[in-house]
Amino acid sequence: MPEITPSPTCPLCQEAGGLPVFESALWRVVRVVDAPEFPAFYRLIWQAHVAEFSDLPAAQRQQCMEAVTAIEQVLREALAPTKINLATLGNVVPHLHWHVIARFDWDSHFPQPIWGERQRSPQPPASERLALPLPALDARVSAALRAL
Amino acid sequence: MPEITPSPTCPLCQEAGGLPVFESALWRVVRVVDAPEFPAFYRLIWQAHVAEFSDLPAAQRQQCMEAVTAIEQVLREALAPTKINLATLGNVVPHLHWHVIARFDWDSHFPQPIWGERQRSPQPPASERLALPLPALDARVSAALRAL
Repeated sequence: MPEITPSPTCPLCQEAGGLPVFESALWRVVRVVDAPEFPAFYRLIWQAHVAEFSDLPAAQRQQCMEAVTAIEQVLREALAPTKINLATLGNVVPHLHWHVIARFDWDSHFPQPIWGERQRSPQPPASERLALPLPALDARVSAALRAL
Repeated sequence: MPEITPSPTCPLCQEAGGLPVFESALWRVVRVVDAPEFPAFYRLIWQAHVAEFSDLPAAQRQQCMEAVTAIEQVLREALAPTKINLATLGNVVPHLHWHVIARFDWDSHFPQPIWGERQRSPQPPASERLALPLPALDARVSAALRAL
């Protein structure tokens, strides 16, 4: 793998990008903590500063998506969400990262994407509705990624 | 592979889901024609009615993402977009499909996701700004997918 220099101006080269959950040589997974409407929201961040999924060689793309899938499977098994949303956008921060988000038919934006128009303000709030406390969910995600 | 019955109420079981570009036994690729602000927008649709990426076995997940990557690579080479956006959401139509969208810093919503807030109304419109006419782009996408 060619060595890729961290970008001094890239937030994902300079900061964790969320609450650290698990880390490998090639990628790390954090839980997103600045979107309280979507508490079961994880982010796989590529360690090297690359912009696009197709910048990765095929073997790394496969490892990347198997890690994304492992997160998805934990969310499905633990929370039985209405839907999983996966996305890699990076328009604001062009450093490869994948969003893995458990969506529920009662959540603030469903069925809109989380970036779309708010549909409701659920009460009790999302943070009180998950079938599992977030630290326990983090532990399951971490265990699934360690097992890859 | 287990036979999966088409859903009589699923639009992606009943209709193409866009302008047909290429089809394999497991998936098809269409160009999205109902989002004129984003003309270089392709969609890989799984042929079987499955909801989530992790419903696929590992070998099919890999084939799926290699096809998504092939589309991404054509868009990058042909159009030099500011960013590629990849997403599988399916909140409205829970039949596995991947969005592959070329984004440009001049487009109507950049840097917001296409589902976010409009930022501007570009003139000339997006359809007149691509480096390649859409039929030629479709042909390149089709050739790349055929070569997989």
